[in-house]
Amino acid sequence: MVSTSAFITSLVTSFLIFVVLVMIFAFLSRRKGNIPIYYPAILLKGRSPPDPNVVRTPWTWIKEAWEATEDEVVEIAGLDAAIYINLFTTALKIIFWTSCFCLPILIPLAATDKNNKLQAQDPEKSANFTSLDDIAMGNIQNKSSRLWAFLIGGYWLSFVTYYILRQTYKHVIELRAKDQSNVRAKPEQFTCLVRDIPPTAKNETREEQVDSFFKQVHPETYEKSKIVTGLGQASKLWAELETAKAKLAHAEAVLEQSKSKAAEDGTRPMHKIGKFGLYGEKVDSINYWNEKIKELTPKLEEEQKRSETEEQKGAAIIFFNSRRAAAEAGQERHSPFADRWQVIPAPEPRAVVWDNMHVSFYQRLVREKVVYVITFFTVVFYMIPIGLIAAFTTLGNLTKYLPFLKSIVNIPALKSVIEAYLPQLALIVFLALLPKLLLALSKAEGIISQDHLVRAACGKMYYFVVFNVFLGFTIFGTLFNSLNSIKQLTSAGAFSFNTVVELFGASLPPNATYFITFVALKFFVGYGLELSRLVPLIIFHLKKKFLCKTEKEVENTWAPGSFGYLPSIPNDLLIITITLAYAVIAPLILPFALAYFGVGWLVQRNQALKVYVPEYESGGRFWPHIHSRILVGLFVSQITMLGYFSVKKFPFVVLLLPLPFLTILFANICHKVYYPSFRFVAIAVASEEVKEVPTLSSVVAAFTPTCLLDSNEMNDIEKLDDSNFQDAESHLPSRSSSGIASPADGALAPPTV
Amino acid sequence: MVSTSAFITSLVTSFLIFVVLVMIFAFLSRRKGNIPIYYPAILLKGRSPPDPNVVRTPWTWIKEAWEATEDEVVEIAGLDAAIYINLFTTALKIIFWTSCFCLPILIPLAATDKNNKLQAQDPEKSANFTSLDDIAMGNIQNKSSRLWAFLIGGYWLSFVTYYILRQTYKHVIELRAKDQSNVRAKPEQFTCLVRDIPPTAKNETREEQVDSFFKQVHPETYEKSKIVTGLGQASKLWAELETAKAKLAHAEAVLEQSKSKAAEDGTRPMHKIGKFGLYGEKVDSINYWNEKIKELTPKLEEEQKRSETEEQKGAAIIFFNSRRAAAEAGQERHSPFADRWQVIPAPEPRAVVWDNMHVSFYQRLVREKVVYVITFFTVVFYMIPIGLIAAFTTLGNLTKYLPFLKSIVNIPALKSVIEAYLPQLALIVFLALLPKLLLALSKAEGIISQDHLVRAACGKMYYFVVFNVFLGFTIFGTLFNSLNSIKQLTSAGAFSFNTVVELFGASLPPNATYFITFVALKFFVGYGLELSRLVPLIIFHLKKKFLCKTEKEVENTWAPGSFGYLPSIPNDLLIITITLAYAVIAPLILPFALAYFGVGWLVQRNQALKVYVPEYESGGRFWPHIHSRILVGLFVSQITMLGYFSVKKFPFVVLLLPLPFLTILFANICHKVYYPSFRFVAIAVASEEVKEVPTLSSVVAAFTPTCLLDSNEMNDIEKLDDSNFQDAESHLPSRSSSGIASPADGALAPPTV
Repeated sequence: MVSTSAFITSLVTSFLIFVVLVMIFAFLSRRKGNIPIYYPAILLKGRSPPDPNVVRTPWTWIKEAWEATEDEVVEIAGLDAAIYINLFTTALKIIFWTSCFCLPILIPLAATDKNNKLQAQDPEKSANFTSLDDIAMGNIQNKSSRLWAFLIGGYWLSFVTYYILRQTYKHVIELRAKDQSNVRAKPEQFTCLVRDIPPTAKNETREEQVDSFFKQVHPETYEKSKIVTGLGQASKLWAELETAKAKLAHAEAVLEQSKSKAAEDGTRPMHKIGKFGLYGEKVDSINYWNEKIKELTPKLEEEQKRSETEEQKGAAIIFFNSRRAAAEAGQERHSPFADRWQVIPAPEPRAVVWDNMHVSFYQRLVREKVVYVITFFTVVFYMIPIGLIAAFTTLGNLTKYLPFLKSIVNIPALKSVIEAYLPQLALIVFLALLPKLLLALSKAEGIISQDHLVRAACGKMYYFVVFNVFLGFTIFGTLFNSLNSIKQLTSAGAFSFNTVVELFGASLPPNATYFITFVALKFFVGYGLELSRLVPLIIFHLKKKFLCKTEKEVENTWAPGSFGYLPSIPNDLLIITITLAYAVIAPLILPFALAYFGVGWLVQRNQALKVYVPEYESGGRFWPHIHSRILVGLFVSQITMLGYFSVKKFPFVVLLLPLPFLTILFANICHKVYYPSFRFVAIAVASEEVKEVPTLSSVVAAFTPTCLLDSNEMNDIEKLDDSNFQDAESHLPSRSSSGIASPADGALAPPTV
Repeated sequence: MVSTSAFITSLVTSFLIFVVLVMIFAFLSRRKGNIPIYYPAILLKGRSPPDPNVVRTPWTWIKEAWEATEDEVVEIAGLDAAIYINLFTTALKIIFWTSCFCLPILIPLAATDKNNKLQAQDPEKSANFTSLDDIAMGNIQNKSSRLWAFLIGGYWLSFVTYYILRQTYKHVIELRAKDQSNVRAKPEQFTCLVRDIPPTAKNETREEQVDSFFKQVHPETYEKSKIVTGLGQASKLWAELETAKAKLAHAEAVLEQSKSKAAEDGTRPMHKIGKFGLYGEKVDSINYWNEKIKELTPKLEEEQKRSETEEQKGAAIIFFNSRRAAAEAGQERHSPFADRWQVIPAPEPRAVVWDNMHVSFYQRLVREKVVYVITFFTVVFYMIPIGLIAAFTTLGNLTKYLPFLKSIVNIPALKSVIEAYLPQLALIVFLALLPKLLLALSKAEGIISQDHLVRAACGKMYYFVVFNVFLGFTIFGTLFNSLNSIKQLTSAGAFSFNTVVELFGASLPPNATYFITFVALKFFVGYGLELSRLVPLIIFHLKKKFLCKTEKEVENTWAPGSFGYLPSIPNDLLIITITLAYAVIAPLILPFALAYFGVGWLVQRNQALKVYVPEYESGGRFWPHIHSRILVGLFVSQITMLGYFSVKKFPFVVLLLPLPFLTILFANICHKVYYPSFRFVAIAVASEEVKEVPTLSSVVAAFTPTCLLDSNEMNDIEKLDDSNFQDAESHLPSRSSSGIASPADGALAPPTV
């Protein structure tokens, strides 16, 4: 357990680091040369970055982040970013309202009791408590009537959460609806994906099969189809070609520069063709790459043709002449058997995972199950190493097992620092390795859109961190720290539920301080780094100085990419879970959580407005995910409370029993009422008026993998005149004049019959 | 425990009863006067019943039931009846294939072992075994390698079930699709129900609100809407009016008869106006009823008008111009919030539960939960009385508690009869009281179609019978019968899982004989009564002789009604569950189950073809229900086996562990692949060609509650000329000529572009 001094040190040091980093940011972000690092989003949007001559105080960014409206955020950073920031807003609201009750009422109640003193005097128990433990529920004596206040706290916490979550869900749905019914229609709104197409009848091509099916089922709205084909070598060749082009440009730039300097015809750049240009014969780069391009281009085109014809899969993309029609088709069951003709709303073109499109129905079912099993085991059995980490990295144990450390450790300052950080650092390092694995697992499920992949991985990660960091550390940490608890467990024979709850309860409040430092570290240092972007900055300057020759290369070095939802969302959710779990038992955690999400809100808004550029939009599909995870957190916290109250021998603990059930009920209701509007676009929304309709050809082009988009095909698409599409648009008015409002211009006013 | 002699008696007596009843049927069904009882379906279909002069052997009905094809059954008795009979077919297949392994292999293995003997010799155990127990798994010695065969039996059973269930599900879906794409379109195929309509804006009527919304969302296919109104007094008044009319007809008929007999102007019938005509002043019936009618008719009409205008609810029925359009609308999410504008496919008009149409979204959610909780408690806490019944009604106990019975009981014949029947009768009587309660509960959930109501009630009933009859009897029966088992339980302190499994396992094989008699009784006597229809027959003749005067009255006395799915399906499913549970442990049950479902198959087919007339069609929606319940049965049986194998101390019992998980996986896959086609009509099916299209007016009329269908309204509907509808039909070809196949006549051939 962390001693008070260690606790303070940890806080102070983290805070100092934070201040320093913010200062660095305030200073560096003003310098002209760094603009691409601190305002890339603005640059890419073609808007002018802040004038470096205008003095920007360290508070300017805060002011700007604070003043931006949500619509601006959606406008600039996209719906998903806005949703992500809503996570912070929600957490802030929940924690704030909880604090209103817990801080002023529960802390005094705890502080004025004396359970810990009594415990400490008790010779049997080897209990040692810090002053921090005295303002937690642990300091309330068993069966004390003061526990009533904490019980009320539990209810307060739950209902605050329900209320805020409901409010936010509604708000988010409205944001989404606004985005969906946007007058600037997006290509995916006219598109559906078709999976599990049955084998073609003989003497019939895929196209014919698909077209005839959908022409019959959606006679008036179906436009055309595009069969999904395997990429085969195409993607590889395309990549090679791209690099070749880049290298050529680079080489030419080098030549140019050399000209300007020395001899006016300059020195032609050379390079070795072996790996990393380390060995092999030396060649003239420009000629070499020119040849490479000449050689690759035809190859690629040929490969593209081949895959188009030979690698057709049992999946297709179908296009409709109105948003409404596509929205309808995406919700409908087309074949009586679900394992044929599955039509689903299309994700953003950029987000399609092409190699998963043709995974067959049954494969998906099985893969899913298998992945779940694997995930389950990952989550459960990582617990042991983490437990060990938590155990060994408490300084006591370290010196116990590695006596030679004593000498170092005896330096008090150092001691407390190590004591404060060792465990957290161990954990953080460990967790950093996870996301890749989970992404791979999720992809194996056969998911077909990037955003869904990320969500799936986040879900797995969340359960992982909650189970291991939160539960794992609490329980194992205790086990290894107090021998008698191990005795307790072994004496109880089986790893029975009650003993675990008991133990868990018993070990909660001491761990509170641990988690507080955990939170503090994460937010001070984490956000400090996030804001100052030191790493990208350094990389940028190094590359720019030594590597980059062409404009494109420079751009690539500062290309910001999008928010890293995968590690951040589960971690933020973990913090919420921890906070909810300790809000009542050790209310001291609340102000730190408040700080975490407060600063987070500012920093992430700043990043959303100025730094990150979304790679694709999921239409805010992250919210149901976040919503239910927060509820899981609440559920965990309610169970925790049940455990701890029964440890406290509180006779009225049964009064807490309804809470978990309430949570389940609430989750269920939200799922029924709100979730569907994230699965599908409501017809009423989809049939609202559109102004700018993309041409069919542009929509088709959008849904072609880049490496298949060769010049010829582009021409094909251009040649394919947009008449049908224009028709679809043009002859709708004529219909509506005959008393039928057209889907596309379906005016809100009732049609003129 | 049932002694062998009692067992034999039970079988013999049941069988005799069965034979007698079949004879009665064969004899009575030939007599002309009974035709309305034995061939009502044929009469109502207007087809000629079998000529009584043609001699029908007792086997004729079997021949006919055997020879009828499934299509004939669907044609004559409707899809639901065919589905119900599929339950028997499936059970037969499963049980037959299981028998193929269990009877020839497991029984000999058990018979040649001698565990029971050893047990009986053991002085400590007060075990007594019958010769029946010797051919059950109980007779295998612990840890014996013979158990391997039984383990394989477990796997055989499971995979047979999976295979057959999958096969049947596919078959049923094809039946349903055939029915859905029938060229004779049904009114409900053009109709959807709308619930949770948001409150109207001011200065706008419900009609305007609904029409404007759907005209905008389904501009080309939406026809008209009909707001659901509360029935208020209308239904009551209507009922009174009907009775009045009937009474009048009756009285006139009486007068006629009296004329023909005595004085040519006859004696006018009189009756007292008090309750049941027992007291009050005497009046001339004809005049009295004439006045009543005169008085009621205007009242009703006025009430109808009132409800039409004043009792409008937040629900409506909407009509489309094509099956495809309605199928589409029924699957789509219309509002971004699920608690508004819920559009669902319409059930058959006759099946709509009008008073549930307007139950609000949140009310439904809450009601559902509440009902579930109530059901749960009903299921669990009925266990106690049933346990007591099972305990007291074993003769041993009876004499123990009521010594005076000894004298009677000592008569051996009587003794064994009582011994055989007491428990079963007690149970059967007890269970007969349940359905009403469950129906009421289900209705409280806010379900809006009769068929769904019945299904919901059946589901509850199934869990009830499995939990109470099967588990309840097995466990409690044992508890009360052997004192040491009670000791066992109490000594174990808590009602822990292991002890229960142990107990359960230990008490299984003895109970097998009990359940065999249970099955035998149910099928011999049950089907005997079902076939011979003695009760309806007697009632019919009595009423006809003494009460009925008019043709209508006579008809009412023999009106057959539809299959009583509510008590029968859960009971049949219970038999399946029991059979699956005992198939391996006491294979002797298999032949009886085979007989049960074999005879059941014949009898129910006969009833379907000749007797029952469906009140409404659910489109075979009963199958998913049956399917999943059979799987639950399999699951229970797998758990049971696990328990019993561990009682047998079989070291390789772990090999059975995968089975329950396999079952869950299988259930999950079926739910994903097949279930959706029962929730919705596939668009491909709905857009197949229709020949006979009902007129809009007739569709609207069909969806008006009878008690609101007064003459005026009928005229209104007639007046409302079908032009729009005809238009919708007529101007579709013109479209399709412009290259777009129309939804309604959407020819299967690809459109002529």
